[in-house]
Amino acid sequence: MTEAQSRRIVLAARPTGLPKPSDFRLEEAPIPTPGPDQVLIGVRYLSLDHYMRGRMNDAKSYAKPVGIGDVMEGGTIGVVLRSNHGDYREGDWVLSHSGWQSHAVAAAETLRKLDPAAAPVTTALGILGMPGFTAYSGLLTIGDPKPGETVAVAAATGPVGSAVGQIAKLKGARAVGIAGGPAKVAYLKELGFDAALDHAAPDFADQLAKACPKGIDVYFENVGGAVWDSVFPLLNDFARIPVCGLIAHYNESAPFPGPDRFPLVMRQVLSKRFRIQGFIQYDFAEQRPAFYRDMAEWIRAGKVKYREDIVDGLGNAPEAFIGMLQGKNFGKLIVKVA
Amino acid sequence: MTEAQSRRIVLAARPTGLPKPSDFRLEEAPIPTPGPDQVLIGVRYLSLDHYMRGRMNDAKSYAKPVGIGDVMEGGTIGVVLRSNHGDYREGDWVLSHSGWQSHAVAAAETLRKLDPAAAPVTTALGILGMPGFTAYSGLLTIGDPKPGETVAVAAATGPVGSAVGQIAKLKGARAVGIAGGPAKVAYLKELGFDAALDHAAPDFADQLAKACPKGIDVYFENVGGAVWDSVFPLLNDFARIPVCGLIAHYNESAPFPGPDRFPLVMRQVLSKRFRIQGFIQYDFAEQRPAFYRDMAEWIRAGKVKYREDIVDGLGNAPEAFIGMLQGKNFGKLIVKVA
Repeated sequence: MTEAQSRRIVLAARPTGLPKPSDFRLEEAPIPTPGPDQVLIGVRYLSLDHYMRGRMNDAKSYAKPVGIGDVMEGGTIGVVLRSNHGDYREGDWVLSHSGWQSHAVAAAETLRKLDPAAAPVTTALGILGMPGFTAYSGLLTIGDPKPGETVAVAAATGPVGSAVGQIAKLKGARAVGIAGGPAKVAYLKELGFDAALDHAAPDFADQLAKACPKGIDVYFENVGGAVWDSVFPLLNDFARIPVCGLIAHYNESAPFPGPDRFPLVMRQVLSKRFRIQGFIQYDFAEQRPAFYRDMAEWIRAGKVKYREDIVDGLGNAPEAFIGMLQGKNFGKLIVKVA
Repeated sequence: MTEAQSRRIVLAARPTGLPKPSDFRLEEAPIPTPGPDQVLIGVRYLSLDHYMRGRMNDAKSYAKPVGIGDVMEGGTIGVVLRSNHGDYREGDWVLSHSGWQSHAVAAAETLRKLDPAAAPVTTALGILGMPGFTAYSGLLTIGDPKPGETVAVAAATGPVGSAVGQIAKLKGARAVGIAGGPAKVAYLKELGFDAALDHAAPDFADQLAKACPKGIDVYFENVGGAVWDSVFPLLNDFARIPVCGLIAHYNESAPFPGPDRFPLVMRQVLSKRFRIQGFIQYDFAEQRPAFYRDMAEWIRAGKVKYREDIVDGLGNAPEAFIGMLQGKNFGKLIVKVA
């Protein structure tokens, strides 16, 4: 590498609501030196994901927040530049969690080696990575779709939603996808969704009811917000609701104005025996080998398709991230770092 | 029997909020005649349960409402007066779902024969009946308490709550019971609850936090209302919340005033990976043989205790029922019909 310095994007300020470009800062720093059993990684691709908005808040959650002045966190694909561990050699492609920066050191045991001949390396950030595994583990473990049942998912062109719908189809269920705008709706039909709806349509609730004539058995909740209100009356007895994300609420602050929907939700939970269950993909870590096996086979057989939205240059990461929170990306959002 | 007429209590009007005595009407009617494979039952005991409030509404739920002018429904213990089925003889004690009336015909296959020598027949309406099975199936299947975990339950001197706490103890968990008034709180300690709290105490939320120093792993939801707000912040990661009743909401009508608690609940469902799941005891019908076996043994061994609150006379059923909805009963509420 000829770069004398590492470039990195740090959290400059904690956003309220939608982040602004000034909440981030591009810095330079010396390229770090790997210690014993560590490697130096030249980051090539950075994954941008909704969970990162949560890490920008100073709130107790399942993971600790990014500190002010710290490098934004994130999954990355890179190339080994120097290695102090026998399992890794210069030039190896690796999956790491190196964050929004061009160079990082990492302990060898935290890495996963990638075979660029088996699949494009970027899929390790999407369909063959965390988002794909989120869809796979949450849908199959909590959602448990049966043949003939109806599975609904929002943000359905995203890396999680598109996998949810396609896996639901592979299990014999009907897949109903919800997305924003005609291009995304058209793409859902290409992916094989049985129905594809634009949540921005003024008659969205009616369209959804028509698209689900036998109700909804599994609602994979990855957005929250207004879509829930249209889904809720359609949920069948014994509906399962895996909760993996609430994009619509990440930028909101309490208190929320009334009326209070919670008592009515609980009444229906009781009378229709819903199961609402939150999860984080790493809760199901023991399922990863099955996921890698199944998903790789589905992709090879053309049964699962994926789409990437690649933005060029680390400096453009903040703008791309803010756009993603507004639904502007189309497919798995990845930054090409170098 | 010397009674020339059957007495019965019908739904006179649909209540809004807490029912009034005038929502019920005591009637007489001819004693019915059993058809083929039916028996005539002389009802001796009537169970009063919270779910009956739901049946008084004209709202879609898991069971259809009681019609205006129809006999109020309910579980009953009675004696066979005439039988047209070989399995039943005059004088047999039976469990039936004959409702608020003194005489009823029932198909033989809907009955369960009771052995009055094995246990007091009234236990078939309580600890060895639907309420006991509600506690057993919901707690063990959805709540799944582990040794050392903390299980909280409200309406804890009631037939469901008292069984929840005692079964939790038998599984090695800590049981925290919530009830109204010092007499009920004292009784919870007799039952072996590790902590017993009065929800009417002005510092109830603080008391609950102190009683649950390691948080709450299972909250058996059978009341709804204000108790939830004190329980919610104490719920641990991976908490399970079986939802079997919402007493506090049965008398309320939407819309509920804000703020809207639902987004915050869903945020915590996600970040703490709660499982909120509604159930009706008959969803778990296949577990009934195990329940009868386990519970009968626990009662014989003195490991589970129960308390009955018996009101004399069918005509007093409406008043007793209205009192129960206000928490005035103490133990399983039963009407002695004849």
